[in-house]
Amino acid sequence: MKVVGKPLPKVDAAPKVTGRAVYADDMLPARTLHCKILRSPHPHARIVSIDTSAARRIPGVLAVITGSDLPVKFGILPVTQDERALEHEKARYVGDPIVAIAATDEEIAAAACDAVAVEYEVLEPVMSIDAALATPKDERIQDYGGPNNVHKFVALEFGDVEGGFARADHVREDVFFYQGNTHLPMEQHSAIATYVDGRVTLWSSTQVVHYVHRALSRVLELPMHRIRVIGAAHGGGFGGKTDPFAHEIIVAKLAMITGRPVKCTLTREEVFYAHRGRHPVLMWVRTGVTHDGRITAMHFRTALDGGAYGSYGVASTFYTGALQPVTYDIPAYRFEGCRVFTNKPPCGPKRGHGTPQPRFGLELHLEKIARDLGLDPVDMKRRNYVKPNTRTVNWLRVTSCGLEECTQRVLEASGFKTRERRPGRGMGFAISSYLSGAGTAIYWNDMPHSEVQIKVDRGGVTAYCGAMDIGQGSDSVLATVVAEELGLQPSDVRLVTADTDTTPIDLGSYSSRVTFMAGNAALEAARKMRELLVQAVAGAGKRYEEVSFEEASVLAEARFGTLTTAGSYTPPKIAGPYKGSGVGPSPAYSYSACVVDLDADARTGLIKVNKVWIAHDVGRAINPLLVEGQVEGSVYMGLGEALMEEQVFRKGLHKWPSMLEYKSPTFLDMPEVETFIVETDDPEGPYGAKEAGQGPLLPVPPAVSAAVYDALGVWIDEVPVTPEKVVEALRRKDKGETPRYGPQRFPAIPYPETIKVDGPVGHQDGTC
Amino acid sequence: MKVVGKPLPKVDAAPKVTGRAVYADDMLPARTLHCKILRSPHPHARIVSIDTSAARRIPGVLAVITGSDLPVKFGILPVTQDERALEHEKARYVGDPIVAIAATDEEIAAAACDAVAVEYEVLEPVMSIDAALATPKDERIQDYGGPNNVHKFVALEFGDVEGGFARADHVREDVFFYQGNTHLPMEQHSAIATYVDGRVTLWSSTQVVHYVHRALSRVLELPMHRIRVIGAAHGGGFGGKTDPFAHEIIVAKLAMITGRPVKCTLTREEVFYAHRGRHPVLMWVRTGVTHDGRITAMHFRTALDGGAYGSYGVASTFYTGALQPVTYDIPAYRFEGCRVFTNKPPCGPKRGHGTPQPRFGLELHLEKIARDLGLDPVDMKRRNYVKPNTRTVNWLRVTSCGLEECTQRVLEASGFKTRERRPGRGMGFAISSYLSGAGTAIYWNDMPHSEVQIKVDRGGVTAYCGAMDIGQGSDSVLATVVAEELGLQPSDVRLVTADTDTTPIDLGSYSSRVTFMAGNAALEAARKMRELLVQAVAGAGKRYEEVSFEEASVLAEARFGTLTTAGSYTPPKIAGPYKGSGVGPSPAYSYSACVVDLDADARTGLIKVNKVWIAHDVGRAINPLLVEGQVEGSVYMGLGEALMEEQVFRKGLHKWPSMLEYKSPTFLDMPEVETFIVETDDPEGPYGAKEAGQGPLLPVPPAVSAAVYDALGVWIDEVPVTPEKVVEALRRKDKGETPRYGPQRFPAIPYPETIKVDGPVGHQDGTC
Repeated sequence: MKVVGKPLPKVDAAPKVTGRAVYADDMLPARTLHCKILRSPHPHARIVSIDTSAARRIPGVLAVITGSDLPVKFGILPVTQDERALEHEKARYVGDPIVAIAATDEEIAAAACDAVAVEYEVLEPVMSIDAALATPKDERIQDYGGPNNVHKFVALEFGDVEGGFARADHVREDVFFYQGNTHLPMEQHSAIATYVDGRVTLWSSTQVVHYVHRALSRVLELPMHRIRVIGAAHGGGFGGKTDPFAHEIIVAKLAMITGRPVKCTLTREEVFYAHRGRHPVLMWVRTGVTHDGRITAMHFRTALDGGAYGSYGVASTFYTGALQPVTYDIPAYRFEGCRVFTNKPPCGPKRGHGTPQPRFGLELHLEKIARDLGLDPVDMKRRNYVKPNTRTVNWLRVTSCGLEECTQRVLEASGFKTRERRPGRGMGFAISSYLSGAGTAIYWNDMPHSEVQIKVDRGGVTAYCGAMDIGQGSDSVLATVVAEELGLQPSDVRLVTADTDTTPIDLGSYSSRVTFMAGNAALEAARKMRELLVQAVAGAGKRYEEVSFEEASVLAEARFGTLTTAGSYTPPKIAGPYKGSGVGPSPAYSYSACVVDLDADARTGLIKVNKVWIAHDVGRAINPLLVEGQVEGSVYMGLGEALMEEQVFRKGLHKWPSMLEYKSPTFLDMPEVETFIVETDDPEGPYGAKEAGQGPLLPVPPAVSAAVYDALGVWIDEVPVTPEKVVEALRRKDKGETPRYGPQRFPAIPYPETIKVDGPVGHQDGTC
Repeated sequence: MKVVGKPLPKVDAAPKVTGRAVYADDMLPARTLHCKILRSPHPHARIVSIDTSAARRIPGVLAVITGSDLPVKFGILPVTQDERALEHEKARYVGDPIVAIAATDEEIAAAACDAVAVEYEVLEPVMSIDAALATPKDERIQDYGGPNNVHKFVALEFGDVEGGFARADHVREDVFFYQGNTHLPMEQHSAIATYVDGRVTLWSSTQVVHYVHRALSRVLELPMHRIRVIGAAHGGGFGGKTDPFAHEIIVAKLAMITGRPVKCTLTREEVFYAHRGRHPVLMWVRTGVTHDGRITAMHFRTALDGGAYGSYGVASTFYTGALQPVTYDIPAYRFEGCRVFTNKPPCGPKRGHGTPQPRFGLELHLEKIARDLGLDPVDMKRRNYVKPNTRTVNWLRVTSCGLEECTQRVLEASGFKTRERRPGRGMGFAISSYLSGAGTAIYWNDMPHSEVQIKVDRGGVTAYCGAMDIGQGSDSVLATVVAEELGLQPSDVRLVTADTDTTPIDLGSYSSRVTFMAGNAALEAARKMRELLVQAVAGAGKRYEEVSFEEASVLAEARFGTLTTAGSYTPPKIAGPYKGSGVGPSPAYSYSACVVDLDADARTGLIKVNKVWIAHDVGRAINPLLVEGQVEGSVYMGLGEALMEEQVFRKGLHKWPSMLEYKSPTFLDMPEVETFIVETDDPEGPYGAKEAGQGPLLPVPPAVSAAVYDALGVWIDEVPVTPEKVVEALRRKDKGETPRYGPQRFPAIPYPETIKVDGPVGHQDGTC
């Protein structure tokens, strides 16, 4: 291969580093109005009245809207259409949008917000999982789901769980907690809309151009072809720009009202309220093992603190349970999940969506079981690794799996097995798996998930795809695939992306789906185009490799006319128990293994990470430079979550809604990272590729916590692993108590009866 | 048909009338530099030296370039690559660009131009056809062509001309002159370029995005895929923006040098120098007829004053000869054409390109022959009308032809035959034919002339085409064709046009080609798309007409994946004597007939046009409102040329390079126009359509002149028909001289020996 596998620079590197890329907030068309949003100061309150008359009188104010102007509810999942762009009935968290104002200046819009009088009837806020499970004193936060403030229950049982526990030699239970945290993108959310000739155009910093398109159509009550959504240059999403947002709908509506461009860029504080970040998850797990450490059954429970709205929460809840049997060979598995509403900004998908939390709990749980049995934890884990070509007990289809190779790489490089053992110095090991795209769209349909068009003419080649480059390099992947097939360099391929008018649909940059899905669509389109070119060149008595691309194009254009080809990708449908009988959550799974080396100070609890070794089974690195960037970024984010980040609340208020107070690692906190790319050549990925951008985050927090145990002999069973917690655990150890910091109990949750699903017959042995 | 044939508003009407359309000069990206061009003050001079040192020292000047920075020559026709973006060897007309300067402000750039010192060696200017034919005193203007300052000779003979004259009962010779004039678009030429990451992007007010793309690639020595040309919103071209222009190349080069956006908007004076307008043409014609007025042979000579460069001149020369047998059945035809270089701005294509001049001469010539024979001129002309389905003596293929129906319409509506005959009041009648696109591209190739892609997804339909809407409504035609086939309204179709990155190629908006060619390409693409939709709907057990377009799209997207189709148009190839054996100049010809009613004052010579009746055989009006607009615009422009417009020179200088001095009709000068659309359903046009935008100009000047004869009994054998000429002709009439104003002689031109081509056997009788 000529370009696949080469560490070429990103195709959009130059505009990004030279400051020429146009982000949504950079746009300022003539007569642009600026929008500010008045937000609820109460976590839970009925809205009695909204008086905007004084605001409307302020010179420079051109439009003031409230919820009655945008009454239609929306939400990312069809089953939870529970948000309004502006709430006029009830505020559900501090930051819930109530009034939006378009004015000639941001300052005037802000002053006009101050002039709005909203009368609230304050309700008791629900600020914890326990409070949400209790009978509410006032009304429920949402009027669906239930009981109390439960949003969603999941209760599933695969295989013979009872039998599995019965034949276990040892059974252990543990409780873990993973604190919530947020994405902290460098670029704040920003959107700008115009309304010309009956058509709305929205430029937004979004990861999901298509879903924003659908939401705008629904709420604005305009057909989709009267709305154009364009993904502006993107300054970071990490899942935080994967919902349609109130401000996107608001600027469109204000543009429709005023006939002028309207822009809204969230303040940094508002970004903390927009959130959709990592769910705080409380976990309980019970696992049975044989004396040699083979898992016989697992029962896993999660309780997710969802915040005030649904967002992706139903999916998040499933995801906390789904991937355990994809990581380890669990022959019988029972999962009970529960998401509750609380009066906080809604949680949603953050890098690793729903899976870092169970990964944290499960990896530590297995560490403890190994120690119970006197086994080496790494050896015991390896004994249970899922094999390639497996149907898991929950029917998920594993194709390629490089777990063992990833493990070997990091163990060897780090010298884990032969590490020096001394107090205050530790190493931890953990593994993980992750999706390469979701097997189903967020709205149920039979259409492709990714579509690519290619045009070739005498002037060159252009590829069109709805995929949104959020910095992960999807534009580069698209260009590389097309270039590889046509015998060009990626920089030769002109791209049109993330524009609902001009590009065919791609579902968006979430669930690590773009390389796998848009890559496959591009591959199909490019191969069809190459076939046309080869035919035309052959017709002139030559071979494709002998002529210039321009000559081939001219021959083909003369022979076939307009040269346009298309490719698309739809996840395969295979017999199974899931809706639509697909491959389950994902058509392919990535795998990671990680070793963390750290110093932990027994006196202060301070942790200094010295080095991280991470190996990632990406299937095939279409661009190893980009894969390394994604892996390192994941490690960075995983360290932040492991050691310091938490989005927490006090008396209904966000504790730290600023970049000064919300702690996140800086360059100075970042250790050396040694990355190993493992290529397992997935049979269905483009050139064998799988995902790279999310999975490598997952093993980092449990590896950190395991390393702390290795260094100090205390278990920190919740993230972040802060000095205070370490010191407290050491204090308990010194007092002869359980040398542990973490949750003591898992609440009594009225899960419904589990739906029992027989595991698949056979094919759990790597012969699928 | 649901939308074809309906007088729907233009799809781009709202942005145009509300001022939201973005013209090139409206664009002002951050850090834009402004370019001014220093031009030659001499019509003919060798450039001895250029000293730019003082200009470079002026604060705010970022780049100064001369011809040595852009030495590669270009030109629209491959055979006449004789222009440089900046001349450093010789200036050939007042206005020839010499130095270009990019500065932070227009005023600084202009001041820097003033600071440039250019030393010229002045040469004798050549300012007339006669002077160009004479041996030059100094060097020739161009170093190719010849002899003397002859640029191009054409000498062709079809059929038995000698025999035709021998069997004539009457032979007449006449000489006519058609003065040059210019396009006078409301929008001045403007272009802005950026250079980012090794790629040039140019937005320009051009009619020929693709040819500008090619010229930039040639002169900047960059491959085409490193250049993107986008047609900005267009404020009028009429042929005047159909060449690649120096300023387009200059801003691209300056952007490459400075790394900043660079804009150049020509001043109105510079637009007069940019020109490429109507060639002044001197004509001599000799025709033999039978006693009943049937033409037996014609010998036609033209001499074109080409200005300083080639431009489209070779084509213009052919065009002055080609269409006579397409209008009238001429069984034997000899044509000799000659274009000379003079030291004036280059002439090129203006609405009707090369054909209004011969039409003027020929129509008046036939009027005079009829009077010689005592025949009614209209009856005699009708006797000679070309018939549908004819191969003309010069092998051109006429398909549909509505000449007779057009004639009937205007005669009936105007009451021409029964008009009141009184001194000072007159009516004139004339006809014409015109191309529906050129049969060959301006560079020889076998590729399509127009290409269209269509994308459909769950969000709607998008059509992509390189065609440039210059106000003629090509975007509306594209949308209408796609909408008709898919059962939508034109406003439902999203368009991407005139962008070399994102749209497949269309050769441009010239020679009235877009409706016919891009229309056919759109039709093919849309029918393919409809077929996919129909199949998918049928697969769901329904009929296409029963379901919504959205439902059909969803079914088809689910069944076929990415929905993209393409269509293209290449003119048919038919046996004949022409290069590549095509259909000749055009795949189809439009026809017009016109009656002009006017008052002509015998004392002052003032002419007041009362009304114009015009019938135009458009084949099929895809949008009758747009056709009427095109026809009325043509009449308006024809009246301007007939009565007042002239681009003329005195002592080497343009006499009237301003809108104050250059006379063109205003609203107040415009008479009522009654337009008749004649539909002949051309067998190869989209829905039967042919051209509308140029042909109806042609009959207006001869009809005006014939009406003046009808009113006053004097022949004005040249345009413009000014009061001075009318008064002079009347003075001659009063003195008993020939009652005529016009050229007295045709120069002795050393035409080469004619190339004799046998006319086609048969098929000149409407049975082809």
